[in-house]
Amino acid sequence: MEGDNMNFPSTEHLPQTPLLVVDRAALERNLARMQALCDAAGVRLRAHGKTHKCSTLGRLIIERGAVGLCCQTVGEAEAYVAGGIQDVLVTAPSPPWGAARLAALAKTGARIGAVADDEGQIDRLSDAAVAAGVTLDLVVDLDLGTHRAGAYPKDALRLARAADAAPGLRFAGLQAYLGHLQHMDDLDLRKSADEAAFATLKALVAELTEAGLPPPVVTGGGTGTHIYDLASGVYTELQAGSYAVMDVEYDACGAPGGQAWGFEPAMAIAATVVSANHKSHVTVDAGFKAVSMDGPPARVVAGAAPGSLWRAMGDEHGMIAHLSLIDVLKAGGRDPLGFDKAVAEADADPARAWPADAPRVGDIVWLQPGHCDPTINLYDALHVWDGETLERWAVDGRRVSK
Amino acid sequence: MEGDNMNFPSTEHLPQTPLLVVDRAALERNLARMQALCDAAGVRLRAHGKTHKCSTLGRLIIERGAVGLCCQTVGEAEAYVAGGIQDVLVTAPSPPWGAARLAALAKTGARIGAVADDEGQIDRLSDAAVAAGVTLDLVVDLDLGTHRAGAYPKDALRLARAADAAPGLRFAGLQAYLGHLQHMDDLDLRKSADEAAFATLKALVAELTEAGLPPPVVTGGGTGTHIYDLASGVYTELQAGSYAVMDVEYDACGAPGGQAWGFEPAMAIAATVVSANHKSHVTVDAGFKAVSMDGPPARVVAGAAPGSLWRAMGDEHGMIAHLSLIDVLKAGGRDPLGFDKAVAEADADPARAWPADAPRVGDIVWLQPGHCDPTINLYDALHVWDGETLERWAVDGRRVSK
Repeated sequence: MEGDNMNFPSTEHLPQTPLLVVDRAALERNLARMQALCDAAGVRLRAHGKTHKCSTLGRLIIERGAVGLCCQTVGEAEAYVAGGIQDVLVTAPSPPWGAARLAALAKTGARIGAVADDEGQIDRLSDAAVAAGVTLDLVVDLDLGTHRAGAYPKDALRLARAADAAPGLRFAGLQAYLGHLQHMDDLDLRKSADEAAFATLKALVAELTEAGLPPPVVTGGGTGTHIYDLASGVYTELQAGSYAVMDVEYDACGAPGGQAWGFEPAMAIAATVVSANHKSHVTVDAGFKAVSMDGPPARVVAGAAPGSLWRAMGDEHGMIAHLSLIDVLKAGGRDPLGFDKAVAEADADPARAWPADAPRVGDIVWLQPGHCDPTINLYDALHVWDGETLERWAVDGRRVSK
Repeated sequence: MEGDNMNFPSTEHLPQTPLLVVDRAALERNLARMQALCDAAGVRLRAHGKTHKCSTLGRLIIERGAVGLCCQTVGEAEAYVAGGIQDVLVTAPSPPWGAARLAALAKTGARIGAVADDEGQIDRLSDAAVAAGVTLDLVVDLDLGTHRAGAYPKDALRLARAADAAPGLRFAGLQAYLGHLQHMDDLDLRKSADEAAFATLKALVAELTEAGLPPPVVTGGGTGTHIYDLASGVYTELQAGSYAVMDVEYDACGAPGGQAWGFEPAMAIAATVVSANHKSHVTVDAGFKAVSMDGPPARVVAGAAPGSLWRAMGDEHGMIAHLSLIDVLKAGGRDPLGFDKAVAEADADPARAWPADAPRVGDIVWLQPGHCDPTINLYDALHVWDGETLERWAVDGRRVSK
């Protein structure tokens, strides 16, 4: 199973738990692999910083060949520029307060791109750029089915003209991110839906070129569709991010093209067993506040018997359910009194053995996150393990309010 | 509906979004109400800091009459002591690395309590206390059905004796937190299960008293059972936390005793509309990284037409679905291509009107969190609105790794 190649530090190297640990060697293999794929396809890599919110990792990705980073929020862009990254595209339309802050970032000399899906956004960015005496790259954001942000294709030319005409802005191209396709289990459907979007994009590029506004860049794509995106012939820039560390959700939905993933799980949470009074499960110090709950449950990858399951038990705790006693937990179901009864009966039953290989208090259990991005967002640092030392990389793009 | 009394600052007072805003007046009413209930019952209030992780709010609760705070993690305890709080109980068994750090905290002169549910934990805390030359309060943690941490009642006397005999520790009493009952929809069952636990606790207090180890404190209870806990005659300390700000989950499950809640929603997320190209919904800048996903969805409480729904659309975005067009979204179901089709068809249908009262780009929509604790954990500050100014209170107990 994927994830079994991760290298974990031993307990004496861990300052505390829960700790989010990255295997440096696996990370480097992932970065090299994606850069090689992009180079071979002649597509610029603009890795998505929303995954890691970490300027140290961002700089590393750029050192390995990426042209810059993208990000979702103004705060992330500020952290990246402060961290020495000179080319940042904010891939979501910004709230009104964001325009002046993006213009201020461009004032430092960094190349700052913003997206817009309506004229009001273009006007606000233009006003802010003029006021600051800078030029911002303006990318027209297109909605090809995700319906989160972006304009319908029919509005692309109108918005491109508005961007081109607006003082302080440079029309920098088109963006189309197909978020709704990234985790689609049906690989044929994932591919055909992605390719249908490419056809729309190609037609738009032709339309804008004919109108005298050839898009300098067509940016988008993600880890779940990267094989198709790189072969599309229309994207000139790939925005994948999760490939750097991977997660349970991407492992589960399968790689595009039906091949094995070229990327390895490179990140896991170190959790400590803090209570072990039951035959069915032990309790670790990783709950909702250490493991994001939007995706599939975190997966036990080391430190407990094969097949053991993590399930949340509140803000700061999770259970590690022993495989041999999953039936006890199932008997309890979702009813908290049923769970109480099943666990207590199993513990009281002298015929039931304690699993000999269950973790004990103080043991470390390693969990691969269900969804990497929002789990990283719960930590103030990545702890990067190179086999000898544990290095702390600040998650400096995490939500900071002023 | 509850939550409609919250007071929100206008847009020009908001430095950015998403921002977590607390209505100071509603907060103060909640604090006063719980303190009055505890005072009337003759029970000490030891509010649970895991809810807010904010030493400023913790000090306020103590100024209003609480005896101290409790918390779940060693890091929270450190933040509270650094923030001037002198009496802190860590309510979950700590990992091995925690013992020396708790002893170091006690060395500053603060009163520090730790819980244990096995002898190994007691030994480690004793060793650390002796090494630091301090005394730690040791509370025996009991499991009365939650099965997250805690010893079975049959083991209480043994552990109390071990705590009493261990150098560096003071046997400080019993803890029983009934997490599994807090949100039970069936109020009769919530009450009867709580009362069954009180009977067990009373028998244990008698057993320990007879053995010469009367528990100085019996601590536990929560917002969802506080009426029963305060009337129990056995708890001498109440550990409720959520009452300070409330959330959708507590609103939904109803107050103990079948009365209306004596506590008001006092906290909401300010989110900005950043995209509005569809008849069915607009998009705001609050997704998984601004709204914890472990509980029910956040509830729209202001800024959009009554009945509008928030649903997550990824890391940094959510949709505000307009009530009149919920059917469009339902038609799409969980299939991302179905969602695409339903939204696109509605937008293309000239017979369908755009809702006149839909929010526009730049508007602020206010969301009450589904579950308060892990949502606060996503922010580095609470922004407290008193009707005139917005004050920043750091969430200084949020996970900090060293």
